[in-house]
Amino acid sequence: MASRSLISVFLVLLIGSGINSSATLEPIIRLPTTRATEADSRSHGDEDGIYCASWHLAAETNNAGGWTQIPSRCHFYVKYYMTAKRYESDCEVVANFSLAFASTVEMAPDGKDAWIFDVDETLLTNMPYYIDHGFGSEVFNESCWDEWVALAKAPAMPSSLKLYNALKQMGFKIFVLTGRREHQRQDTSKNLELAGYTGWEGLILRGASDRGIPATVYKSERRSVLSNGGYRIHGSSGDQWSDLLGFAVAKRSFKLPNPMYYIG
Amino acid sequence: MASRSLISVFLVLLIGSGINSSATLEPIIRLPTTRATEADSRSHGDEDGIYCASWHLAAETNNAGGWTQIPSRCHFYVKYYMTAKRYESDCEVVANFSLAFASTVEMAPDGKDAWIFDVDETLLTNMPYYIDHGFGSEVFNESCWDEWVALAKAPAMPSSLKLYNALKQMGFKIFVLTGRREHQRQDTSKNLELAGYTGWEGLILRGASDRGIPATVYKSERRSVLSNGGYRIHGSSGDQWSDLLGFAVAKRSFKLPNPMYYIG
Repeated sequence: MASRSLISVFLVLLIGSGINSSATLEPIIRLPTTRATEADSRSHGDEDGIYCASWHLAAETNNAGGWTQIPSRCHFYVKYYMTAKRYESDCEVVANFSLAFASTVEMAPDGKDAWIFDVDETLLTNMPYYIDHGFGSEVFNESCWDEWVALAKAPAMPSSLKLYNALKQMGFKIFVLTGRREHQRQDTSKNLELAGYTGWEGLILRGASDRGIPATVYKSERRSVLSNGGYRIHGSSGDQWSDLLGFAVAKRSFKLPNPMYYIG
Repeated sequence: MASRSLISVFLVLLIGSGINSSATLEPIIRLPTTRATEADSRSHGDEDGIYCASWHLAAETNNAGGWTQIPSRCHFYVKYYMTAKRYESDCEVVANFSLAFASTVEMAPDGKDAWIFDVDETLLTNMPYYIDHGFGSEVFNESCWDEWVALAKAPAMPSSLKLYNALKQMGFKIFVLTGRREHQRQDTSKNLELAGYTGWEGLILRGASDRGIPATVYKSERRSVLSNGGYRIHGSSGDQWSDLLGFAVAKRSFKLPNPMYYIG
């Protein structure tokens, strides 16, 4: 099989040299340059790079299950992934698939077509915070985090802001459902508005009675309330599987990437 | 934020130069070499490489929903991904997470602890077939495919074979649940055995009455039969979301990568 694989690669190189009419104007093969596009090739070496990309895929597909720490050999991978082009591109592609699905929804005139967004690493990016706190490699410090939330300075995720506005334009009622706590309502609301988000139908935060409830249950219960209120939850966007799984799930769920932390 | 990001990258480079005691013996930064490890950096260029990696992630996380074709700009990406080290590594990491979960299962003495495996691109790899058929970029040709299945020559996915044997050793009852059809039972059984798989509890194929039923429904119905028969389905391994979603789902589902084709 190895030799067949080599033959195949050789054929691809041959085709790429210009014989194939489907070739674009760009050369089909570009030798790796110093402008490497992928975290892998800049990580601790080929082996760690490949492993970390595989670990990341396993985390994104929920194969990894609950995880509390980024593997130490992957700290650099995660930093590079978050700050180079891949993260932004990955988020944009998810937003485009979300919008493509939304365009197929037949909207009813009753104003009950809904879409749910999570906040952190979904509508807002906490990149400035994580740049200062090891991109998830440091142990979570709740008081530092609360100080950051109180600043209300998290920027919008550009592709999420575009999606949010497009959905609003299409007539979706937007619910913001976050694991942030009720006492953070004003800061969260202020931050969302400063980042450009307006006109949501509801902003749902963890109340005192939600303390200690797993995120999946808390979010499912709140979706249930919306469903029971007659809302049809077409889409749900979140960076955690706990934003998306459980009960009263959306017709389509969209998982944004996040290799920095896991919330179960 | 861009400047903070640059400062951060600079700090990482500094740390990588040897100051940090956690540094491995390998240099933390390795300049891209001709032994590039990632499909991205060998695709049509940086832009296509990034896009295709993002498309692939969207497909693996089910964000892409149903898709019938690999985007044409990603044909080379998929070829490279399947034949270079990433595919093998991705599969191995999934198998390791599967085994880690299996080790936490408290086995009962009733022999009803079960695990389900799909066949194609899960227990077996059809790489020799796809090398000859464009890695999913060609329109699916059923008669060519049937000829390939009849050869019974698909090799084992190495990490799946290891997982399969480990699970068997631990006492799991293994059910092989495939979208292949009943008339392919003998060839499939022969192929599995030639590839090293033995001792399954059941091999379930699509019967005449399953014709036209979506894969998710067919597989859910068969899992239901197992559950009703008293089996506790702890794990399920498959390369398609239709292997894993629906009803009577396993306690944990493990999605193997497959950017070549989608079965809904």
